[in-house]
Amino acid sequence: MTVEIVCVGTELLLGNIVNTNAAYLAEQCAGIGLSCYYQSVVGDNKERLLETIRTAIGRSDIVLLSGGLGPTQDDLTKETAALAMGKELVLDEHSRQRIEEYFAKKGVKITDNNWKQAYVPKDSIVLDNHNGTAPGMIMESDAARVILLPGPPNELKPMFEESVRPYLEALEPGVICSKIVKICGVPESTVETEIKDLIEAQGNPTIAPYAKTGEVHIRVTAKANDEKEAKSLIKPVVRELKARFGMDVYSTEEGVDLQKAVVELLLANKLTVSTVESCTGGMLAARLIDIPGVSESFKYGYITYSNKAKRRILGVKKATLEKYGAVSAQTAKEMAKGAALLSKSDVTVAITGIAGPDGGTEEKPVGLVYVACQICGRNIVKELRLSGNRNKIRETTVAQALILMRKSILEYYSQQTFGKEK
Amino acid sequence: MTVEIVCVGTELLLGNIVNTNAAYLAEQCAGIGLSCYYQSVVGDNKERLLETIRTAIGRSDIVLLSGGLGPTQDDLTKETAALAMGKELVLDEHSRQRIEEYFAKKGVKITDNNWKQAYVPKDSIVLDNHNGTAPGMIMESDAARVILLPGPPNELKPMFEESVRPYLEALEPGVICSKIVKICGVPESTVETEIKDLIEAQGNPTIAPYAKTGEVHIRVTAKANDEKEAKSLIKPVVRELKARFGMDVYSTEEGVDLQKAVVELLLANKLTVSTVESCTGGMLAARLIDIPGVSESFKYGYITYSNKAKRRILGVKKATLEKYGAVSAQTAKEMAKGAALLSKSDVTVAITGIAGPDGGTEEKPVGLVYVACQICGRNIVKELRLSGNRNKIRETTVAQALILMRKSILEYYSQQTFGKEK
Repeated sequence: MTVEIVCVGTELLLGNIVNTNAAYLAEQCAGIGLSCYYQSVVGDNKERLLETIRTAIGRSDIVLLSGGLGPTQDDLTKETAALAMGKELVLDEHSRQRIEEYFAKKGVKITDNNWKQAYVPKDSIVLDNHNGTAPGMIMESDAARVILLPGPPNELKPMFEESVRPYLEALEPGVICSKIVKICGVPESTVETEIKDLIEAQGNPTIAPYAKTGEVHIRVTAKANDEKEAKSLIKPVVRELKARFGMDVYSTEEGVDLQKAVVELLLANKLTVSTVESCTGGMLAARLIDIPGVSESFKYGYITYSNKAKRRILGVKKATLEKYGAVSAQTAKEMAKGAALLSKSDVTVAITGIAGPDGGTEEKPVGLVYVACQICGRNIVKELRLSGNRNKIRETTVAQALILMRKSILEYYSQQTFGKEK
Repeated sequence: MTVEIVCVGTELLLGNIVNTNAAYLAEQCAGIGLSCYYQSVVGDNKERLLETIRTAIGRSDIVLLSGGLGPTQDDLTKETAALAMGKELVLDEHSRQRIEEYFAKKGVKITDNNWKQAYVPKDSIVLDNHNGTAPGMIMESDAARVILLPGPPNELKPMFEESVRPYLEALEPGVICSKIVKICGVPESTVETEIKDLIEAQGNPTIAPYAKTGEVHIRVTAKANDEKEAKSLIKPVVRELKARFGMDVYSTEEGVDLQKAVVELLLANKLTVSTVESCTGGMLAARLIDIPGVSESFKYGYITYSNKAKRRILGVKKATLEKYGAVSAQTAKEMAKGAALLSKSDVTVAITGIAGPDGGTEEKPVGLVYVACQICGRNIVKELRLSGNRNKIRETTVAQALILMRKSILEYYSQQTFGKEK
């Protein structure tokens, strides 16, 4: 089956925002096994929107539309898609109630235009929006299936996951299964070189690497008559990838990201953790606290952006700051050590670096970062030399800190076990 | 004049990369004053590419194509665009020489397929590529102008700057200017209701609201013969919007986001700030530290996720936690107060809430959050009842904390001034 992606929004046509929805939807559809031949962007203009939807319906089996479902007069997607599919709009009592509840919970008065969102094309499947007021919709006809999704990515993605993906998966005969081998701390080009032979020989399953900050994910996708057959096709490939990348594979499970893998490792070993951050200003702690259940492990987080804070809170020596500077292996080490004494945590991580755009020198350029991890008295410091803007440097630093935490814990326990065996 | 953007590449259709070229080209074209009504993405397939280019030529004055100019068999854009424009390909001696020089400089042997890049549509304007081997091209006919650009952004952008922008500017008399009125703390539907009359009466300039987390941006865009005229068309509308939304307008400047506005307010008033976070786990501090120069103001950040941490670090009373719970206005207030005593900062902000998915009760559901802001002894607490997943709740909380900080500071100084006037 073919799918076409149509994103609606003047802000896309003006280039005010980058179309991440199209990339997300395209990747998801490819994962399900749908062929996508066209993507388009059109503005909040009835005539052009109608022309675009009609063209899409005429040449694709499924049309995924995103954006233009809001309460304002500009939002025309639902009305226009219904027109293209020959459906009238009717009040959906369930959606009306949900909007009422949404505003009641927020304690905000409902303005008249919000009720517009309770009207849906007749006979459509309504998709609940747990992160906003605009419901999604699926319209079906002999010609095509048209699926409407809200524009904000934090509404679109959960709705796709919960409602659209199962719907699309049920349309395709046979099944497509994927397993993602998640690797951290290995550069993309190294991963590609290591699996070049597998990629060249691929058939069913297919093998595709995707780079993320500090990580590379290898997606192994098989098409088969049933799930069991697909899984048996995937299994040996995943086993081979695990053998090649060893400890650098942090998970092959869905829903497990790097911070979750680290938190699970902390919890499994009953380790408490505290963080100390300078240039990342809380981003590492925020990623750990992203994981429900981390409260069993997370003790304290300190943000010590200034030298004074590093000295006062963590007891970093004045002499160390003067001799080596705030951005140095020595300071990072003392920060982690100070946090361990103060917090009595098993694991402490400290970050200090120059995220730019200013503050760099020839000797210590923008992008120089030190990450220290202390575990039960052992302290490892890693020097990073990163490129990119302030945000990119901060994000990469956090990923590298998580990788260092994971490595430190694994190494500590492998050495402990080795010691016991002797 | 109208422009249409067509990006060619299977990696876009598969969602492996995000289409930043489309956003870049769209923004550039809007800046020149060209109207863009359509963007599309199509793969390296001759038939579908031809159909897409023909449609674009039929409805737009200028077609900007990017990607598919490389040396491989997959790269079909030039051949297909030439076919659509009825032009044959001829050897371009200048391009042939440039390719020869490029490889000689790199010390790499030229493979045969590279010569393909020296062929251009007859009578086209050839655009030198200083960052790669594929030249760009401009084809002109009575029906349309078709401009071919290489796909890699580091080749496309310099070529656009150097050759395409001057070419397009010469075609279009007049300019387009925009100003964005950034509003915080007012729901989208309320903003829409407040400016309904302006939107209904809009002509030149146009007025368009966009919702962001905790914010609404209103873009005012004018078309005129020159920049001065455009600015004078925009000015009264921006003035009117500022009058309607008063203090809720936090900026009309490019590059100023909410955290920057708050940090500028802190710096302008020489206020120091410290943060205390529970469920947001450092996200508020991270957003403040996103702004270079914040080190003058930011003193300490504490992440006190557990009750123990709230008591030990901030001195929240055991009785308060027992009587009202960790997620309560009283605890938030004591957290901000404790942080003020500990850090000796002028402004302290405290966040405590239930971000979910677990931990909610009927009395205190997931999404219940308290934000306290203490400024020079005055303490304001705000209760939030948010919906969405853990991430959405955390992001909205941070936006609301920034809004409360801004409001607290502004109110404090307006009262101070008022006091002085008496």
